[in-house]
Amino acid sequence: MTAHAPLIPPGPVDLAALRTDRTAGVEGGKEAGKQALADLGPELSDLQERLFAEGRKGSPRRLLLVLQGMDTSGKGGILRHTVGLVDPQGVRITSFKAPTEEERAHDFLWRIRKALPGPGLIGVFDRSHYEDVLVPRVHGLVDQAEIERRYEAINDFERGLVAEGTTVLKCLLHISPGEQRKRLLARLDQPSKHWKYNPHDVDERARWADYRRAYEAAIEHTGTEVAPWHLVPSDAKWYRNLAIGQLLLETLRGLDLRWPTADFDVAAERARLLHEDLEDPQDQAS
Amino acid sequence: MTAHAPLIPPGPVDLAALRTDRTAGVEGGKEAGKQALADLGPELSDLQERLFAEGRKGSPRRLLLVLQGMDTSGKGGILRHTVGLVDPQGVRITSFKAPTEEERAHDFLWRIRKALPGPGLIGVFDRSHYEDVLVPRVHGLVDQAEIERRYEAINDFERGLVAEGTTVLKCLLHISPGEQRKRLLARLDQPSKHWKYNPHDVDERARWADYRRAYEAAIEHTGTEVAPWHLVPSDAKWYRNLAIGQLLLETLRGLDLRWPTADFDVAAERARLLHEDLEDPQDQAS
Repeated sequence: MTAHAPLIPPGPVDLAALRTDRTAGVEGGKEAGKQALADLGPELSDLQERLFAEGRKGSPRRLLLVLQGMDTSGKGGILRHTVGLVDPQGVRITSFKAPTEEERAHDFLWRIRKALPGPGLIGVFDRSHYEDVLVPRVHGLVDQAEIERRYEAINDFERGLVAEGTTVLKCLLHISPGEQRKRLLARLDQPSKHWKYNPHDVDERARWADYRRAYEAAIEHTGTEVAPWHLVPSDAKWYRNLAIGQLLLETLRGLDLRWPTADFDVAAERARLLHEDLEDPQDQAS
Repeated sequence: MTAHAPLIPPGPVDLAALRTDRTAGVEGGKEAGKQALADLGPELSDLQERLFAEGRKGSPRRLLLVLQGMDTSGKGGILRHTVGLVDPQGVRITSFKAPTEEERAHDFLWRIRKALPGPGLIGVFDRSHYEDVLVPRVHGLVDQAEIERRYEAINDFERGLVAEGTTVLKCLLHISPGEQRKRLLARLDQPSKHWKYNPHDVDERARWADYRRAYEAAIEHTGTEVAPWHLVPSDAKWYRNLAIGQLLLETLRGLDLRWPTADFDVAAERARLLHEDLEDPQDQAS
């Protein structure tokens, strides 16, 4: 039983033709899918700890999970339910908002570079440098030449990351506009969700087709061999969470992670501990 | 059934007289204690999300959990098992190592300030500014006047944090030297734990009594009314994790966290979504 976040093949992309509501591969539906995600926890945790351990001992390897998608597509849900399965010490999450004045004064990759995960960590970008080839294009804030410069800059940047030992997983959380409407209405129905609702999101929603074209162009220009895009059908939240869990698991398995071997004399250390003379005040405190 | 991390009262502190192996208050021992911790998850998550939501809407409130203790006392275990109960998006963890050259070129609080949690977040310090009144004292790296200047700087700093809306929870994870020996030996016994073992920790262990005195002095000088110290009996890992969970829960409950109210017209937004005209390509894609 597996959910699947397939690679988007190189070449032109037609997102409207790619299903958002796929749940194939998981018999038993939602409940089975949630259980399947929980069942990934132990192995995911074990592999994440190996990656972390390796990082402490000098390995440059790390993972960067880039989550992109329209509002309500579930970046937060993945952080809570999938990324939440592993030790939070080994995870570095960055949620990118509209750039600040200081960030805008720098190149668009400046704030991205500052948020990269260190060795052994799993970095997660909730939105990313891809916002800088989506929003400005949809709103006509920069010209086409600048968008194309950014595609190239992104490709160079990601090629560098991979060369330095980062595995880059780029995921498009693919939802339909109908599903987004349902989710926005659900936020309105629950007072405990009002804080997540922003009327501006509905303005952006009216530009759905423009965003789709911007995503298609971005994916076509930045879906490289070293850092390809994955399509995550995201109308079913449980399927989306499971698909990302599977993708993380397969990626970590592929790294062939081993526990670092001791760089000290184990027997000598054991002897030191057993033969030391250290007073324990608790022995007299009872 | 509750585990307890009592406040350390103002005045002189005698850590050798305070039990490290307390598990009182929890009937049923380890298994019951682990279940009790898991049972805190839903309410802890709910309150953490309220704090996060409030932060997004302009509230300055946040939490800072400071974890201090000898090697193996369980800072990492608390991060995984207790802090791991809540949404990782709402948590900012910083593990402080020996200061880098750049950090040493600044005042000791420089790197601490950079790691403070933003509004709505739960910040966790795995080690902290307290290392700077412990290690230098034990190793005689600075004189007594400098240590006392640092106590004052810490008190001013923490008073400022509290005034800005941060709840500061300072926890001493209290273990006995015998328990530490057991844990270090256990690391040697398991090849998958060798990466956590550092022979230098055993050198430090030989200075146990010096560290105890340094902790006693630090707690006595920095246990203030606005930012007191909690003692967490930590020989039993499950009790320690549960005690911190209880402390977080009680602290969050005490903040009287409410969901932010809508700053927009809910009915008007619902009407906008229901009466919009947006083509859904998925409707034709089946």
